[in-house]
Amino acid sequence: MTPADDQRWLDAAAALAARGRPLSRPNPAVGAIIVKDGRVVGRGWTRTGGRPHAEAEALAMAGDRAQGATLYVTLEPCAHTSPRGPSCTSLLLTSGLTRVVIGVEDPDPRTAGSGIAALRDAGISAELLPLPTARRSLEGYLTRATLGRPHVTLKLAMSLDGRIALADGTSQWITGPQARAHCHVERSRADAILVGGATLRADSPRLDVRLPGLASRSPQRMVLTRGTAPAGWTAVADITAPGTFGDAQFLFVEGGAGAAATFLVADMVDRLLIYRAPIVIGDGLACIADIGLTSLADAHGRWRNADRRTLGSDTADVYERVR
Amino acid sequence: MTPADDQRWLDAAAALAARGRPLSRPNPAVGAIIVKDGRVVGRGWTRTGGRPHAEAEALAMAGDRAQGATLYVTLEPCAHTSPRGPSCTSLLLTSGLTRVVIGVEDPDPRTAGSGIAALRDAGISAELLPLPTARRSLEGYLTRATLGRPHVTLKLAMSLDGRIALADGTSQWITGPQARAHCHVERSRADAILVGGATLRADSPRLDVRLPGLASRSPQRMVLTRGTAPAGWTAVADITAPGTFGDAQFLFVEGGAGAAATFLVADMVDRLLIYRAPIVIGDGLACIADIGLTSLADAHGRWRNADRRTLGSDTADVYERVR
Repeated sequence: MTPADDQRWLDAAAALAARGRPLSRPNPAVGAIIVKDGRVVGRGWTRTGGRPHAEAEALAMAGDRAQGATLYVTLEPCAHTSPRGPSCTSLLLTSGLTRVVIGVEDPDPRTAGSGIAALRDAGISAELLPLPTARRSLEGYLTRATLGRPHVTLKLAMSLDGRIALADGTSQWITGPQARAHCHVERSRADAILVGGATLRADSPRLDVRLPGLASRSPQRMVLTRGTAPAGWTAVADITAPGTFGDAQFLFVEGGAGAAATFLVADMVDRLLIYRAPIVIGDGLACIADIGLTSLADAHGRWRNADRRTLGSDTADVYERVR
Repeated sequence: MTPADDQRWLDAAAALAARGRPLSRPNPAVGAIIVKDGRVVGRGWTRTGGRPHAEAEALAMAGDRAQGATLYVTLEPCAHTSPRGPSCTSLLLTSGLTRVVIGVEDPDPRTAGSGIAALRDAGISAELLPLPTARRSLEGYLTRATLGRPHVTLKLAMSLDGRIALADGTSQWITGPQARAHCHVERSRADAILVGGATLRADSPRLDVRLPGLASRSPQRMVLTRGTAPAGWTAVADITAPGTFGDAQFLFVEGGAGAAATFLVADMVDRLLIYRAPIVIGDGLACIADIGLTSLADAHGRWRNADRRTLGSDTADVYERVR
């Protein structure tokens, strides 16, 4: 294996992991690929509810072909036994694998390096290969571990001049069908979705996933309000209160301007997803309300562009929070 | 010559033409390349004040090597005699050239196809090859011919959320040094530059070209006001009044929000140049004031993305008006 091969296989494992997102909750969505002589002999991703783990599934598929093979796995294999089954590390020790390439060390204190140590103690080569793809696929789990809350994407759909609606509130449609379909895929990858109270009252958005085969992936709906929520919605009064978002790993915030500002002021936006249509609105509703900024210098150095793409006549830009 | 070769040479002629912009005024900035056996034997672009023409310069450089060669020229060679010298068509007829590839037919009624006709009558192959590069290089001249006014670029420098300043008017700096240098190159390509009266009073912008070697390219400065202009500035009260912009071919509008709206309402913006910094401002000054839009449907179909690029941590997007 060359370093480029390793990167390619681990990238592929990160892509596989996406199949488990967000259904693996409360477990992280992990991807695993077993490669022998340049061919895939096993693969797996964390299944609904967290079991089987990706590694167990890949090993079951590989069977005897795991002998002398390499496992690529996005997260360090778990090293703690659970009432739900043996640890992945214990399975790996008897698998015949000779090498394990790992994207991210598990921040769970019950594992936290002990999986890698156990593999090495058993004579299996275990290497960390930190790749952005693996990290991104796990960022909900990692954000929970480091910040105690879900990873938050703030989605904004705007005109070239930063307007999300006409002055009278009309917002259908700013972006075109490709951008809206892309947004539904993004929704399907979230555990929960949130809008502000004013947006809910004004637009009555369904916030479901309207893509063939993905209706069941519609996330839990939340509204930012000090009042009560309609049926099928959860009211959130304080986004910083512990436990507010349960065990959600990925939260998708769809505005409006007030909710966007609330999350930005709390520094709880990890990813900006901006759809822009090639239109000019002029006077209209702003996309983000007051965030208390008093100096331009304070605004710089916080966001890094991570993706730009064209969606029909619209564009989608992704910015990640620099921490 | 293959069609791909023809395109490549005509694109190169359009790139050469940029050297004459905007100094060629009142003439269009034309580029010309003479190619023989796959090698450049002459080239030229319209010089300051409009003479020599690009073709004359290229022919002078080629001399006898023009025999049997091909001329690539962005605009149809002029066919009318002028007190300033013979027409380019008459020069071409005695040049020995056997083929002429032309980007755009001259809309000047004194030529308007008669240059091409004269070449063909003399047995010289003359072909139109409409390329975006050639059209763009001439769009100031073409806009004057079709709409009787200069080609207008509206430049906006904004945050991700469409703000051009904090609420208190602070706008230094939103974009970084690369984007600001890029903007100075854009200024150097304009005959005139305009800001709104409020922007002039608030920011006292110099609007000159602060790049080594290009200070002499600073465009004529204009301010949109019904009052008087300071020394060194020209007051513009009505942008739609005939003759307002003299013989300017390219006008660069740098805001603020009111001037931007005035030009958009008059449908006098041909090109949007949007610099975006990776910052969020929240409450702040909008980039474009009210343009009287009452329906989102009316906003669509007017702008087409023509360029996207990264400038340091900023981006620059160009949109062209669809007419």
